[in-house]
Amino acid sequence: MILPSQNIGGQNPSEFELISRLAELCDDVNNTTSDSILTGIGDDASVVSTAAGEILLTTDAMVDGVHFRSKDRRWQDVGWKCAVSNLSDIAAMGGVPDHALVTLGVPVGTSPDSYEELYVGMNHAFDKFGGKIVGGDVVSSPVMFINLAITGHALTGPNGKPSWMTRGAANAGDLVCVTGPLGGSSGGLETLLSGKDKRGKEVLINRHFHPTPRIKLGQKLVQLGVKCGMDISDGLVDDLKKLARSSNTSILIDMSAIPVDSKLLPIFGPESIEHALNGGEDYELLFTAPSVIVKNIQRKVESEISVIGSVVAGDIPEGKVKVQDANGSEYEPQRKGWDHLNG
Amino acid sequence: MILPSQNIGGQNPSEFELISRLAELCDDVNNTTSDSILTGIGDDASVVSTAAGEILLTTDAMVDGVHFRSKDRRWQDVGWKCAVSNLSDIAAMGGVPDHALVTLGVPVGTSPDSYEELYVGMNHAFDKFGGKIVGGDVVSSPVMFINLAITGHALTGPNGKPSWMTRGAANAGDLVCVTGPLGGSSGGLETLLSGKDKRGKEVLINRHFHPTPRIKLGQKLVQLGVKCGMDISDGLVDDLKKLARSSNTSILIDMSAIPVDSKLLPIFGPESIEHALNGGEDYELLFTAPSVIVKNIQRKVESEISVIGSVVAGDIPEGKVKVQDANGSEYEPQRKGWDHLNG
Repeated sequence: MILPSQNIGGQNPSEFELISRLAELCDDVNNTTSDSILTGIGDDASVVSTAAGEILLTTDAMVDGVHFRSKDRRWQDVGWKCAVSNLSDIAAMGGVPDHALVTLGVPVGTSPDSYEELYVGMNHAFDKFGGKIVGGDVVSSPVMFINLAITGHALTGPNGKPSWMTRGAANAGDLVCVTGPLGGSSGGLETLLSGKDKRGKEVLINRHFHPTPRIKLGQKLVQLGVKCGMDISDGLVDDLKKLARSSNTSILIDMSAIPVDSKLLPIFGPESIEHALNGGEDYELLFTAPSVIVKNIQRKVESEISVIGSVVAGDIPEGKVKVQDANGSEYEPQRKGWDHLNG
Repeated sequence: MILPSQNIGGQNPSEFELISRLAELCDDVNNTTSDSILTGIGDDASVVSTAAGEILLTTDAMVDGVHFRSKDRRWQDVGWKCAVSNLSDIAAMGGVPDHALVTLGVPVGTSPDSYEELYVGMNHAFDKFGGKIVGGDVVSSPVMFINLAITGHALTGPNGKPSWMTRGAANAGDLVCVTGPLGGSSGGLETLLSGKDKRGKEVLINRHFHPTPRIKLGQKLVQLGVKCGMDISDGLVDDLKKLARSSNTSILIDMSAIPVDSKLLPIFGPESIEHALNGGEDYELLFTAPSVIVKNIQRKVESEISVIGSVVAGDIPEGKVKVQDANGSEYEPQRKGWDHLNG
């Protein structure tokens, strides 16, 4: 959940800026001590080399009033989604989830039943997609929060070596692809918060509360040779920009090829595309690969894979994403993606 | 920091009760899916078996107004201590720290400089004791919090196999030992909050802000055959009770043998023992072992190791800790240890 009250932009540095500054501080230290970080700060998960092999590491938190509302008392949904947001980071690397640590920030007077329900929701997700809770911490806090940290491991790519996707491996000429329909979670949230009649809109609302991490599909992509990918958690256009920046390249998107969630259309009409372009928390995958690999994927996986554009060089500034409508004009999104510090 | 305003006990289940309930929920799930958890919920760190070897995992959070006060603007100290509290959990297992993930809960309007300072403090600690930051998450939050999750690995014990200490391995007849002086952090905090003149008390205050995790010493203990240990983070007596409960045994402590921090005496006089018995956040180690192993340790390590009692069977109820004064009478502590949910 991305609550509108958090849309108070402009007072913080952007999430991207802050992470970049903090990453620099760590690079200064890490470069002098070890080379065991294979993929570091700024990707969906980190990949570290240990004596025993590569380990994936990621963490993701949810805060009351920002990512969920405790007053809704949908604890199993909150637990599920917190697990899914972390699992999706492992899916974004094409990895296998292993072990999870849970930190609970516990306000005085919260019923223990809430936490049990939360754990039931998390365990459902781990049971279904892999991973298990092995430890954690509980601390007193004026506001409820849940932090999950999970580990995973990499599968073997076509070259016979442990392989994973990163945001920085896109090359000019690659096709840009996404899995599944987009915009459903965002549409579900807007429906939920609108105060309007919810009848017939349950599927969309469920997209918001009960997303699916693309664990198996992420693994399949790696096994079929995809090197560049991430999950769509902050909105398609914003996430494409992150990928373009990390890869020092630029991206051209064909708006008509975007797989807009069909459940949006009866409710939002022409505005549906906005949810698909800029709505967060779909937890689908975004990846780029040469067309020969994409064709092979489309033959071998049952899931819906949409080719929505290409990685280009030259005519668009580096790090930029251009969305073209059916007339070839640049489309200016009406909504902004989600910045975790400014809403 | 354990701020007095959080001492609002009685409205939450105890930390121990909540963790026990949540652990049961996870055991139900985990037992049916895998046996890869070697040491699970309820110890200082978890130990999991992977295809590639044993990994230690732990997480620990600090919250504004509970563990630190943002208005003090001691960001490097906050970062240091957050790293140390996690490193100490690895030390408690006798492990080697490897990789850390940082989650920042970021209130609107906090200066990015604060976070940079925080990272400087964390990096100082990791640089000195091992481990490095490899990734993380930033989220908007009405209250500032920092969560760290770190991984580590186990060293080889005298039997040639990867070994670590747990809370559940104490046996009747073992000696009970602690490292270092105790009570300094608690005395430092009381001094800091007292409003009295701080001159001449800087060493004590520094014990509070700048504790040392016993990483090398924990490793040495494992290598010399110690199987039962933990760190002293919530207060000696409370932590002894956790160890006794986990080991299904009981413990007799000789109060006169407790290494009270000498810096406490000029300020707190006879009350100093209270800080040593029940003050948290010293991050020293507590362990039990047969006397032959303890003697060997005292010969081989330079650090101060105090034998403060023994693990007993029969005359004290299981899970209980009895502190005896010089006359052989049971001492009733005036202060309570720290419960993370009730202060």
